[in-house]
Amino acid sequence: MKTMLKGIAASDGVACGRVYRLDEPDLHVSQQTITDLDYELNRFHQALEATVSEIETIKTRVNKNLGADRAQVFIAQMAMLKDQDLVGDVETRIREQHVNAEFAVALVSSTVEDELAELADNPYLQDRLTNWQTVAKRLTAHLLGVTLPDLALVNDPVIVVTHDLIASEAVAVNPKQVLGFVTDAGGRTSHSSILARSLNIPAVVGTQAATHELADGDLIVINGTQGNVMVGPTADEVTAARQTMAQRVKNQRRLKRLTHYETVSQDGVGVTLAANMGTVTDLPRVMASGAEGIGLLRTEFLYLDAQHLPTEDEQFAIYRQVLETLGSRPVVIRTLDVGGDKTLPYRPSQSEANPFMGARAIRQSLAHQQVFRSQLRALIRASAFGHLSIMFPMIATLDELRQAKAIYDDERSKLTAKRVPMGKIAVGMMVEVPAAALLADRFANEVDFMSIGTNDLIGYTLAADRTNQNVAYLYQPYHPAILRLIDNVISAGHAAGIPVAMCGEMAGDPIALPLLLGMGLDEFSMAPGSILKTRQRISQLDAHELASLAETTVNSASTSQEVVTMVQAAVPGVLK
Amino acid sequence: MKTMLKGIAASDGVACGRVYRLDEPDLHVSQQTITDLDYELNRFHQALEATVSEIETIKTRVNKNLGADRAQVFIAQMAMLKDQDLVGDVETRIREQHVNAEFAVALVSSTVEDELAELADNPYLQDRLTNWQTVAKRLTAHLLGVTLPDLALVNDPVIVVTHDLIASEAVAVNPKQVLGFVTDAGGRTSHSSILARSLNIPAVVGTQAATHELADGDLIVINGTQGNVMVGPTADEVTAARQTMAQRVKNQRRLKRLTHYETVSQDGVGVTLAANMGTVTDLPRVMASGAEGIGLLRTEFLYLDAQHLPTEDEQFAIYRQVLETLGSRPVVIRTLDVGGDKTLPYRPSQSEANPFMGARAIRQSLAHQQVFRSQLRALIRASAFGHLSIMFPMIATLDELRQAKAIYDDERSKLTAKRVPMGKIAVGMMVEVPAAALLADRFANEVDFMSIGTNDLIGYTLAADRTNQNVAYLYQPYHPAILRLIDNVISAGHAAGIPVAMCGEMAGDPIALPLLLGMGLDEFSMAPGSILKTRQRISQLDAHELASLAETTVNSASTSQEVVTMVQAAVPGVLK
Repeated sequence: MKTMLKGIAASDGVACGRVYRLDEPDLHVSQQTITDLDYELNRFHQALEATVSEIETIKTRVNKNLGADRAQVFIAQMAMLKDQDLVGDVETRIREQHVNAEFAVALVSSTVEDELAELADNPYLQDRLTNWQTVAKRLTAHLLGVTLPDLALVNDPVIVVTHDLIASEAVAVNPKQVLGFVTDAGGRTSHSSILARSLNIPAVVGTQAATHELADGDLIVINGTQGNVMVGPTADEVTAARQTMAQRVKNQRRLKRLTHYETVSQDGVGVTLAANMGTVTDLPRVMASGAEGIGLLRTEFLYLDAQHLPTEDEQFAIYRQVLETLGSRPVVIRTLDVGGDKTLPYRPSQSEANPFMGARAIRQSLAHQQVFRSQLRALIRASAFGHLSIMFPMIATLDELRQAKAIYDDERSKLTAKRVPMGKIAVGMMVEVPAAALLADRFANEVDFMSIGTNDLIGYTLAADRTNQNVAYLYQPYHPAILRLIDNVISAGHAAGIPVAMCGEMAGDPIALPLLLGMGLDEFSMAPGSILKTRQRISQLDAHELASLAETTVNSASTSQEVVTMVQAAVPGVLK
Repeated sequence: MKTMLKGIAASDGVACGRVYRLDEPDLHVSQQTITDLDYELNRFHQALEATVSEIETIKTRVNKNLGADRAQVFIAQMAMLKDQDLVGDVETRIREQHVNAEFAVALVSSTVEDELAELADNPYLQDRLTNWQTVAKRLTAHLLGVTLPDLALVNDPVIVVTHDLIASEAVAVNPKQVLGFVTDAGGRTSHSSILARSLNIPAVVGTQAATHELADGDLIVINGTQGNVMVGPTADEVTAARQTMAQRVKNQRRLKRLTHYETVSQDGVGVTLAANMGTVTDLPRVMASGAEGIGLLRTEFLYLDAQHLPTEDEQFAIYRQVLETLGSRPVVIRTLDVGGDKTLPYRPSQSEANPFMGARAIRQSLAHQQVFRSQLRALIRASAFGHLSIMFPMIATLDELRQAKAIYDDERSKLTAKRVPMGKIAVGMMVEVPAAALLADRFANEVDFMSIGTNDLIGYTLAADRTNQNVAYLYQPYHPAILRLIDNVISAGHAAGIPVAMCGEMAGDPIALPLLLGMGLDEFSMAPGSILKTRQRISQLDAHELASLAETTVNSASTSQEVVTMVQAAVPGVLK
């Protein structure tokens, strides 16, 4: 029987394939008293072997598909399974306490946790615990006779169905094996959606019922442009979906040809298309994306994925690698933006009633200057190896900007005195707090460039947290108030003779594109997967005609819906 | 030895007096086995008598100072002390369980709580529990031989010192008995500070150390204009402080003469000075304040102070009382603004990661239309008894405004069809979300008036939660971006031919006053205690001259400090 699940259109495209459920099964264990010890020890050894062979498979595939770096962790996991302290301890507990193997594994996990609790700051023990917990989970699954899913174990391409994709799973996503995503939770701007768009994989999120309705192996067709999931399609529907997929591959091949072109509108106006980048492992994807530079390199990954504050040299090495890889192409690196919904595991943080309106980004950097200064030194040193711009996040007052610049100048002078080689560095700011957008004319005189961060700008201007389902409808990129702010920033930048970029989600949005081009935005920075499509769209648009569309919209539109209607009427062809 | 405590200047003026510590002592009780039962019963009876006499005193004083309404609750408390079910139960437990009296009282409290847990919706039981807990606390204090402070028990005027003033204590504040406040916690915009300014009592908040440094009876001099507390002043310093206090009384008497005057600038421009009102018990103070109307009547008190949702008739009675009392003077009533940091005790609410950017105010009203419609009906019915305006809070999009107005029109039509008498009603909106301020020209065509809510507008525009100490420095009313938004709203309102008011804290601020007058703000709504002083200041200002000060500030100031400097240079005299 054919049914249709409705969800949120999160990433364009159609996919047809079999369901792969990524949810963790119930791994709850209870204590049992064992009489046949040999049987139980044998059961444990079989599970151990199965786990070793499984991790070996995962390691080999990750190494092949995603590179040796990503495979490192499995070597450490394998070591745990051969560690006689741990494995021997499980055996001893089965033998002496007469407990079942699952329970013995759980007891050993507790012991490792207790050791760590006594030496909480020891990064070696922390790694050991994490690795042991990962293999213990897999061991337990084998003992319980359940399957622990893993994207690396997939043989044929599948459509991943899960409650919500967590960051650690997302790391393992191999675009070749994953045809699409379907989740119960999330919205257009949630983590899973952003990932899907960046990988250019169709996705439907927020279906609420997908994990309830769909079982492993079910054949489904998902439409990420319309936001629906067809369960049990007819043969004709499958054929139609496969044709759409083939057409998509063909279109993508056609787009691919634009990789090394410049970005120019129909009437000859050139703009820059750059990539947003969240971690250094995105680098190959960015290099293949057709990006003319990096418009936003977030540096949080250096701090959040680590057990300790990264040293200046560790940072320098990464920044240098990115700058060298990009060569003559510009790279905009944003200083640390933590606080809000991201806290450093090793920095004690007060809980805040409204963290989005709390001590985040530049506010924390100015309050913890040692960390900020170390990052700035690493950046200045790396500037010798490429074309670097530094950008401060969440600037709300000129006092903050001046303080941040003074600290930067101070570190630069000290390094100059030491004759450290360095390149020419542009210093700019994110415009993401409404106060900065409103006062852009004053800020423009004191920076080399401005980059509009629409995600936060929209949130504050509408007073709506986009991660809150209750008010997600108020997170409106096309609200005329947002367009007015953007227009004001671009005009202020140009009046001061500096370029204006945009690095929020909106920069890659097809409805926003004609308006931004009409307003004269200089640089669009977006998910790598959107670059070629945007280049194609821009080549079909007339920037001079769009200037009057933008002006009319800014001056006379009253609602988001009016804006959409005006854009669709003006440029019906390019929005597909 | 003289020492000086530094704090935050929260409410202007100097006060000299003795410390009265309002903190609750440790009332922890532990179980003891009693052998001499008669002694223990006697001890309980003595505590009971002491409690009866204490509550009698409080009741008499509250009745005399604050009116019979406020004294009602003590009659109910007295009844608890004569309730044989409760008092008898304490005695039985002492006699049969051989426990100490304090512990017996605690056991009885648990029993009452258990009864309530079984019948959770019973308002009678809820009241009974609250009243019993209040008297049980006083009984326990007597049994433990500690003093439970109460402002009603103060004989001579004192300076109240406490960690932070909680709302329930604030209700009991009699301005005649309280010379000033000093608190450990809080900032200029915290609850204690707003209360102090509304009562026109000097206050220093956020001293961090006051409760640690000051003991009951210590002689101190506080300066709420400078934000400091002098401990152990010399005789000369006491004399000087007393002279300042006497001068203040004299100035206040002079101000008092302005009560029935209109508000007119030096060059003849008339504006309206109205009062903000948070509960109906403020009515006498508003009537005596010289206000020309009520610019903001918050309606949360009707919902938050109640055990159940107020009925339409209960609301109608209160709105009617306020409108009748004000007579021909206008009253602006704001529809319910819950969510954010205020949740209804009887409405289940999801916890939100950033409640200030969540489902609050009109967002909740549109989601829970029955509550909203009942409030609108009560308001429409009450309009027959005065001069009513209705105001919607937190409007961010025209869609919301149109929905709210459609619901209002619908209820109005139904009441008209039933021939219910009603008056002419103006319908307006708060401008407190940046999007609304930016798009004020579009909104102005669809409302009868706009009122700028600066508290939230500043918070969202600077992305700073003013209740968060870490970012309180970013809550900047004079930030040029804020001035630009306010100027935009006023211009848009005037272009559309509607009046523009302000009802945030900023409306009563002496630095902001010349700028707002220069921009052409029509109505200033503020704490009742600030009205006469503001009327006096306006009479000394030249609105036409200030128009160019406002223009210069809006166009060319870069920071808050620059704004302050410009205002101080332009009008040095009136800021004191």
